Amino acid sequence: MSFSPLINQLIESLRILPGVGKKSAQRMALQLLERNRQGALKLADALNLAMDKVGYCKLCHTLSEEELCPQCASPNRDDKLLCIVEGPLDVFAIEQTGYQGRYFVLKGHLSPLDGLGPEAIGIPELLKRIENAEFEEIILATNSTVEGEATAHYIAQLLAPKGLTVSRIAHGVPLGGELELVDGGTLSHALAGRRPI
Amino acid sequence: MSFSPLINQLIESLRILPGVGKKSAQRMALQLLERNRQGALKLADALNLAMDKVGYCKLCHTLSEEELCPQCASPNRDDKLLCIVEGPLDVFAIEQTGYQGRYFVLKGHLSPLDGLGPEAIGIPELLKRIENAEFEEIILATNSTVEGEATAHYIAQLLAPKGLTVSRIAHGVPLGGELELVDGGTLSHALAGRRPI
Repeated sequence: MSFSPLINQLIESLRILPGVGKKSAQRMALQLLERNRQGALKLADALNLAMDKVGYCKLCHTLSEEELCPQCASPNRDDKLLCIVEGPLDVFAIEQTGYQGRYFVLKGHLSPLDGLGPEAIGIPELLKRIENAEFEEIILATNSTVEGEATAHYIAQLLAPKGLTVSRIAHGVPLGGELELVDGGTLSHALAGRRPI
Repeated sequence: MSFSPLINQLIESLRILPGVGKKSAQRMALQLLERNRQGALKLADALNLAMDKVGYCKLCHTLSEEELCPQCASPNRDDKLLCIVEGPLDVFAIEQTGYQGRYFVLKGHLSPLDGLGPEAIGIPELLKRIENAEFEEIILATNSTVEGEATAHYIAQLLAPKGLTVSRIAHGVPLGGELELVDGGTLSHALAGRRPI
C-alpha cells in the first residue's frame, strides 16, 4: 500500500526541495493536508509567481524580478567598489556587513570536472561589466573552498593587466573562535595575514 | 537589504513546511529559482491539486481523494479486525507490517490542555463505525506517548461493555535494540510482557 495517487504525487514533488528526503516529504504533505491547506495554497501561488516573474538583474546577474536589483538600482552606493560573489545568498550575507559598493554575482565557481568553465559561470559578462564602469577596486568574495579560491585566482589573473586594485577577503580565525579548535590551514592564514594593532 | 519582494514571499511561504526555518527556506527558494524551475512549477501544481481534491475517507477517516480509501475499498481484507491509529502516517507504517484488517484514523490524541476532547479527535465517529460493522477485535495502535496511552485507555473503557476483544500493541525492546541502551520504562514493559518461547 501507499498513499492515494495525489498524495503520492505531492510527496514526490516535495522531494525536489534540497534536504528533503522521503520521510520529511511525507510529514510535510500530511501536515499541509491536515493542518494548513490555506498555507499550502499560498505556497503554490508564491511558487508560481516567483518562477514566472523572477529573472536576473541586468547588471549584477543576481536573482531579481525587476530589470535592476535593489543594489544596482540604488543611486546611493559606491560606484568605485565591486564585490564578486558566487551566488545570490552571498549577496544577502555581505549586505548584512553594511557593505555599500556594487556586486557581481557569478553562477557558482569554476569546476572543470563538472564542465563549468569561465563561460558557464559568467566571466565574460563580468569582464563586460567591469569595462563599462569606473571601478577602482574589485573585491573577490568567492567561497574559501578549493574551487572558490581557484575562481578568485583565475579572475585576479584576468584583471591584473587592467590596473585595478584586486583584493581577496581575509582568511583567519572567526570571531568567537577558539584557537585550539581552528584547523591548521586557517591558522596559517591567520598568522600570515597578521596586522599591527 | 533583503531579497526582492517575490523571493521574500516565496521564502516566507516555504517556512510553513514543518522543520523548515529561515536559512533552509532561503536555500530552497534560491535553489528552485536557479536550478529547478520546472520542478517548482510541478510542486505548485501538486499542492493545488492535492489541497483541492484530497478529503477524508468516509469509513476510516484517513486522507483520501476517493470516497473510500484503498484499505476500506478493498474486498480482500479482514472485516473482523479494526486497527485504531492517530493519523494517516500510522496507517502507512502499519501497512508495511502486512496487516490485513481495517483501520480507523483518529484526528490525533486526547489532549485536554490543548482543548482536544473525544469529539475533537473523532471518537463519536469511531463508535458509529464499530456499531455499523461486525468487528471481533479492536487493536489500539495509538502512539506509546503519555497522550497516546491515555487515548488508548479511554477507548478501551468505552468499548468494554460491547463484548469485543480490545487489544493494545506490545511494548518492549525494539528489534536490534541493546538492553543497556533501552530506558527503564520500556524494559519494565518488556519484562512484564515476557512470553514463553
